[in-house]
Amino acid sequence: MPASFLGSALRGTFFLAFGLWWSVRYPLKYLNRKGAVEGQPGRGRAELFEGAVKAFFALVGILVEQFVPSGPHLQLYSPKTHSWTDLTHWHYSTIYLFFLLSGITDVVSHSPLKLPPGLERLSLTLALLVEGLLFCFRDYSDAVLDQHLHSLLVMAIFAGALCAFLEVFLQDHIILETFRTSTFLLQGSWLWQIGFVLSPPWGGPGWDDSDSSNLLFLTMCFCWHYIGALVVVATNGGKLVFKAPGGCRSLWC
Amino acid sequence: MPASFLGSALRGTFFLAFGLWWSVRYPLKYLNRKGAVEGQPGRGRAELFEGAVKAFFALVGILVEQFVPSGPHLQLYSPKTHSWTDLTHWHYSTIYLFFLLSGITDVVSHSPLKLPPGLERLSLTLALLVEGLLFCFRDYSDAVLDQHLHSLLVMAIFAGALCAFLEVFLQDHIILETFRTSTFLLQGSWLWQIGFVLSPPWGGPGWDDSDSSNLLFLTMCFCWHYIGALVVVATNGGKLVFKAPGGCRSLWC
Amino acid sequence: MPASFLGSALRGTFFLAFGLWWSVRYPLKYLNRKGAVEGQPGRGRAELFEGAVKAFFALVGILVEQFVPSGPHLQLYSPKTHSWTDLTHWHYSTIYLFFLLSGITDVVSHSPLKLPPGLERLSLTLALLVEGLLFCFRDYSDAVLDQHLHSLLVMAIFAGALCAFLEVFLQDHIILETFRTSTFLLQGSWLWQIGFVLSPPWGGPGWDDSDSSNLLFLTMCFCWHYIGALVVVATNGGKLVFKAPGGCRSLWC
Amino acid sequence: MPASFLGSALRGTFFLAFGLWWSVRYPLKYLNRKGAVEGQPGRGRAELFEGAVKAFFALVGILVEQFVPSGPHLQLYSPKTHSWTDLTHWHYSTIYLFFLLSGITDVVSHSPLKLPPGLERLSLTLALLVEGLLFCFRDYSDAVLDQHLHSLLVMAIFAGALCAFLEVFLQDHIILETFRTSTFLLQGSWLWQIGFVLSPPWGGPGWDDSDSSNLLFLTMCFCWHYIGALVVVATNGGKLVFKAPGGCRSLWC
Repeated sequence: MPASFLGSALRGTFFLAFGLWWSVRYPLKYLNRKGAVEGQPGRGRAELFEGAVKAFFALVGILVEQFVPSGPHLQLYSPKTHSWTDLTHWHYSTIYLFFLLSGITDVVSHSPLKLPPGLERLSLTLALLVEGLLFCFRDYSDAVLDQHLHSLLVMAIFAGALCAFLEVFLQDHIILETFRTSTFLLQGSWLWQIGFVLSPPWGGPGWDDSDSSNLLFLTMCFCWHYIGALVVVATNGGKLVFKAPGGCRSLWC
Repeated sequence: MPASFLGSALRGTFFLAFGLWWSVRYPLKYLNRKGAVEGQPGRGRAELFEGAVKAFFALVGILVEQFVPSGPHLQLYSPKTHSWTDLTHWHYSTIYLFFLLSGITDVVSHSPLKLPPGLERLSLTLALLVEGLLFCFRDYSDAVLDQHLHSLLVMAIFAGALCAFLEVFLQDHIILETFRTSTFLLQGSWLWQIGFVLSPPWGGPGWDDSDSSNLLFLTMCFCWHYIGALVVVATNGGKLVFKAPGGCRSLWC
Repeated sequence: MPASFLGSALRGTFFLAFGLWWSVRYPLKYLNRKGAVEGQPGRGRAELFEGAVKAFFALVGILVEQFVPSGPHLQLYSPKTHSWTDLTHWHYSTIYLFFLLSGITDVVSHSPLKLPPGLERLSLTLALLVEGLLFCFRDYSDAVLDQHLHSLLVMAIFAGALCAFLEVFLQDHIILETFRTSTFLLQGSWLWQIGFVLSPPWGGPGWDDSDSSNLLFLTMCFCWHYIGALVVVATNGGKLVFKAPGGCRSLWC
Repeated sequence: MPASFLGSALRGTFFLAFGLWWSVRYPLKYLNRKGAVEGQPGRGRAELFEGAVKAFFALVGILVEQFVPSGPHLQLYSPKTHSWTDLTHWHYSTIYLFFLLSGITDVVSHSPLKLPPGLERLSLTLALLVEGLLFCFRDYSDAVLDQHLHSLLVMAIFAGALCAFLEVFLQDHIILETFRTSTFLLQGSWLWQIGFVLSPPWGGPGWDDSDSSNLLFLTMCFCWHYIGALVVVATNGGKLVFKAPGGCRSLWC
């Protein structure tokens, strides 16, 4: 199985996991809030856990990118060849670094320190903006298909960033949370798709770059992935509405 | 009559019908709300009906796109020619699928289930965004006129999407509703115009692609269509203001 | 004096006149509102007058564009040459038509009919958007300087449109009104500049199109025009603050 | 040391100084506001001082740009060579002029004159927009690296402008203030980076323009600068939270 497929799939799994987790947590939070207006909606434990997991995976991601055999091992410039070493690995490390920061902000802002509310949304926005920026300026060198796939990915990323930025001002807005969840699911499943298209796990070359109908199909495929994401969000939300008993609901609210 | 004219005209009629319906319903709702502040503005029946109609026509659209003689009959990949079959039909099916979802959301959110308010606006936004995205990435292959006509269409679509997105946060805002209505009328009449320009119903080729003054004329023509849309909205709104008796007004409010 | 200079200068004078009028009216309105909170800020007479003037000049503009000797005289298509006649004149007529609509909306919305508040801002937004759209898609045919001058103009236009759109939601916001005033002054003086650069009133050719330093200078010149606009706004606003007596202030508030 | 490095470094220092000052002042203001809700948050002295410093440095900047030996000495057009003189110096003078205006607005709006609140944010927005516009339309003449570096700079500038524009409507919003602070720090440190890349202080040519991996590295480097900016903001903010005694805190609040 090629390394680039593995990397894309792992990254996709990370975003899928977060999307799935949110697709359960946010409807629960909404239902709890509607049920019991009086109590502060006990935020904290779930978001603390979430931030810790995010930071942990980001840290693991950085270490893996740097210390896989083909990685740069923290070396940035090779004096021998007078060139930068493995900029792609460094690019990903940078992205993970911002998610690490976002995770740390999550953890700190639910500690007793009381950061201003909305700061953890801003840090998520920044992480997504940096991710989008670095995918925009990757070296595609005439690989039309590669560029098209990633520009679709960047749309999902920036939609999530816009959403997170609006949440700085409109906190606990269930529609925005749902929308952000769906963009994370989309991003995750699209990363899997990118892996399958550019470096199939069963080996062999990727899809034909010169066939323009592939671009048309993949644009449409992107929309289907989004329908899948919406179905997941709707199913998880719907199950809760029907099954949830009147009283307290778990997931640490 | 060429099939592509018929398709464009039918799609245009769909949007025109919605625009016309809204151009009557929203002013009525506004007048009723101003008249009687106390009662909840009895939303529900009209929007339920609207959602059902939208979902029905979207479903019909999907079936027609798939099962017309020249359609793909649900076949996506042709193993014989090793190529994708009829991606244009699939593109339209995808667009209709999102409008189907939007219709279903309309219906469900006015059922007793009580979805969070604004969700049906988000689903309309998504349908319009997907429509715009797929029109942006169609295969124009150097047909300048085709591309120009559709990029003008995309402006109308994205203006409607922006409007629907703002309505997630500002519900029942009469100005936004009027603006959205006018973008739907514009989109509808522009789809008719596209049909006449690219594949005239009386047969023969479309307009001359190499004459750049056609582009200039059509840009201006787009603005005239919008004036037409505004006149329709103003006329329907104005009639209600003058004729409406003091008491209850119909259209299920 | 070339006709194109005259046209540009007249258009510029229209926008300058509106900018100057607003640069006096809005600070007065603001001061009156701060002075006397109790009374409804008696909007109406000034905006009615404003709308009527706008509509009148737009109507005159349409008639002039159509019936100058070189104009199209309401003829759109010439069957003799099989081509569109004078699309530039028609473009301007279309722009004026939208300003005419905006003027009519102003007049109607301050009549006893009570249109929803904000509708006249939306119609101004639409007029500016259409103006910007038609300037974007003019036929520049490789005249780099022409295109650059108009793309700077379009920035001023769209800044004004954004401002007017925000005013739909935030009415009587003094900062937005000031900003919009400055964009109108900028647009007006830049139209004069365009006239001087492309068709100098003393005859002779316009500036050298092939000299790229002209582009650099004109970009900077655009900023200087804006400084001029800001100085005018500040001076008019400042005079009022210092001179205005405590009691009632005129200009029909 | 080449003049262009010196210029870039001085400009960078200006933005860094403002960023650092804000990274201390805004958290303090926030803490004070949380501590004592009753008293008006005594704005004024700090912002007056800030405005005066900004205006002073902008004035110095204009004079230096004009009267360095290689400068234009207020001459705009050279009749001898029939060309514009030193447009780059004039560009920078224009930018400084807008920051001068912004500084004056700061000073005036905290005088007893009582300008409408938010006006000083609008003037900062305009200064940043003009800076971004002039960097967008500089004469890069095929220097890919130069253009890439400045387009990244423009992102930081426009992010700051967006932030300042939002602050017109949402005043004293700690998250927006923090974000703006970080964009100023980023802009400052990136101006230093531009100096080092294009005209190293130890002489010699700038980086290799034809090596595309330099572009990739610098995009990533831009993100690292931003991490640095965030760390500075977090450190300064964090120190205050821990050390600040309960009572009054200085920096003129």
